[in-house]
Amino acid sequence: MSDEILHRVALALACEPGDATVGAELARSGAAEALRTRLEDPAPQRRPDLVAARAELERAAALGVRLVVPDTPAWPTQLDDLGDRRPIVLWVMGSGDLRLGALRSVAVVGARAASAYGVRVAATLGSGLAAAGWTVVSGGAYGIDAAAHRGALAAGGETFAVLASGVDVPYPKGNDSLFDRLSEHGLLISEVSLGQGPRRYRFLVRNRVIAALSRGTVVVEAALRSGALGTLGEACRLDRFTMSVPGPVDSFVSAGSNRAIRDGAMLVTSAAEVIEQVGDLGVDLAPVPSPPERPRDRLSRLARDVLEHFPAHDSIPHQELLAAAGLSPAVAPIVLTELTSAGLVRRDESGWALTPRGRA
Amino acid sequence: MSDEILHRVALALACEPGDATVGAELARSGAAEALRTRLEDPAPQRRPDLVAARAELERAAALGVRLVVPDTPAWPTQLDDLGDRRPIVLWVMGSGDLRLGALRSVAVVGARAASAYGVRVAATLGSGLAAAGWTVVSGGAYGIDAAAHRGALAAGGETFAVLASGVDVPYPKGNDSLFDRLSEHGLLISEVSLGQGPRRYRFLVRNRVIAALSRGTVVVEAALRSGALGTLGEACRLDRFTMSVPGPVDSFVSAGSNRAIRDGAMLVTSAAEVIEQVGDLGVDLAPVPSPPERPRDRLSRLARDVLEHFPAHDSIPHQELLAAAGLSPAVAPIVLTELTSAGLVRRDESGWALTPRGRA
Repeated sequence: MSDEILHRVALALACEPGDATVGAELARSGAAEALRTRLEDPAPQRRPDLVAARAELERAAALGVRLVVPDTPAWPTQLDDLGDRRPIVLWVMGSGDLRLGALRSVAVVGARAASAYGVRVAATLGSGLAAAGWTVVSGGAYGIDAAAHRGALAAGGETFAVLASGVDVPYPKGNDSLFDRLSEHGLLISEVSLGQGPRRYRFLVRNRVIAALSRGTVVVEAALRSGALGTLGEACRLDRFTMSVPGPVDSFVSAGSNRAIRDGAMLVTSAAEVIEQVGDLGVDLAPVPSPPERPRDRLSRLARDVLEHFPAHDSIPHQELLAAAGLSPAVAPIVLTELTSAGLVRRDESGWALTPRGRA
Repeated sequence: MSDEILHRVALALACEPGDATVGAELARSGAAEALRTRLEDPAPQRRPDLVAARAELERAAALGVRLVVPDTPAWPTQLDDLGDRRPIVLWVMGSGDLRLGALRSVAVVGARAASAYGVRVAATLGSGLAAAGWTVVSGGAYGIDAAAHRGALAAGGETFAVLASGVDVPYPKGNDSLFDRLSEHGLLISEVSLGQGPRRYRFLVRNRVIAALSRGTVVVEAALRSGALGTLGEACRLDRFTMSVPGPVDSFVSAGSNRAIRDGAMLVTSAAEVIEQVGDLGVDLAPVPSPPERPRDRLSRLARDVLEHFPAHDSIPHQELLAAAGLSPAVAPIVLTELTSAGLVRRDESGWALTPRGRA
């Protein structure tokens, strides 16, 4: 094991994630120097401890937790966009490949107190993304996060949970069976040391990792004050794609996601539309949604034009129809036969009228 | 009565609304000349008839229907943006002032087969616009159109229905009591001659009048194939504001309105946001929606920072909290007292923990 790794683990143990001062020092002077300047910290908890770091690494090995450090082959280089806020280390647990999976990944985030609508949409997005070979990235919370993971797992895809606690103590406990499946078919990821519980602060800084890791972030449901909007803001600052799923304007949990669209996030309604955004130009195109075909779509151009001149409800005398539609007596029988055969119009005692099918 | 008026009524009787050929001739050579070139039309229905025109005017007078013709003081000049597709005449019935009302007006349009959600939103928008002194413009259909009118009427405002049939035979019959109230507190408007029923074609060309008359068009709910999207398209071509209300991505009747937002219409969630778009710059500003205040919003900056370092669930020992939060022993009691008084944290046997209120 290199000293660099041990020093980084010791530093990570001694400070909170996202500390830009430590990050700047690491970038400027390296781990050994950053460590040295901290050995005199008046608060004992913030003094790096190489013995504790070594114990942490042994514990990780025993639990099957891997360590991924910057500037090594396993490191997802897109996290370097975080600059001085780049994680000092990442702990990962599970079968997935962090670097490879993150290359084609989308963050799906949103409210814990999601509605049935939000949960349904998050699960559908998760499975649609997974089915198309994209990795889902999210947190570990109830609501949207959990639904997105479940959708991806249901489609047999890969899904990553970035946690605000140690990967060996994922939070909340109620999602434990989900976390088990995630480590079998994806990854639990955290920059927080093993055994550490979540802090409010850690959720906020964790969001930058979700945003940085993936090509774009989709907010499914979010109240006006939602951590998910923070993740979207990070995605925007990091020049990633920002997307949001619209919802009813009178739904509390869609107020933030609708607002995000007003503020510039792309409105998305399906996994295909998400992939069109984050995917490769001209390759991952979403099909433009098309309405179901109607009987009149198969008519000749002329018959369609004539149909427009039928009254919505009443009958129209034969001669009047011809005049209104500009139909010559020679052509009229052909067109009217076409319309009659299509079941769209019928003759009645006063002339011609639309059938119920023609009115539809 | 001037010849110009009589000639225009005769022309309107003899051709369908929105006929750009007639419009171009009217613009180039005037009504008398446009009339003369049509007196030889092989179809008798398309030959202008001055006797019928005079009878039409008498009938209008008897019914209390007014005639508004281009280039007269009562004409809403924004319709001139339609160029050769400008209506030849407009028939109006009701107490409203077409020209004045149209100056501050917004079109609210959408699906006939609206959902309960759409109807609720359309009514809320209609009443919000009316309460702020804006005229609502729409069609006369069931669903969104009717709900927007009802909302405006409920708020004591003015509302205009542009019809695809004569103003004396508004369609559909089921909205008759609404049409009665509309003519008392607004206007029924049509370019179609009296007594004429609707045609499919007439709904489509009617939409250009709705779009041209108002400063902007809001689509509330629309399926992918909806006339309301046509109105929005007209509004866009006419350089009016285009707006759309988002809805659930799995709702058939929101597919078109969500699509419209993807295609560039502004997402709006309230009358205030609509007015911010169409209103005067810097005057009609929508309040940015703000979430409800929480207990922690009133804390000092320092207390808020310290709160972030509490574990989400467990307790944290006193010394550890001080170290994590960077609190000196001198300041700690002050901050912890502030947090305790706010009911956000409490002491327990192992140190400090969030209360349920602090976790919220």
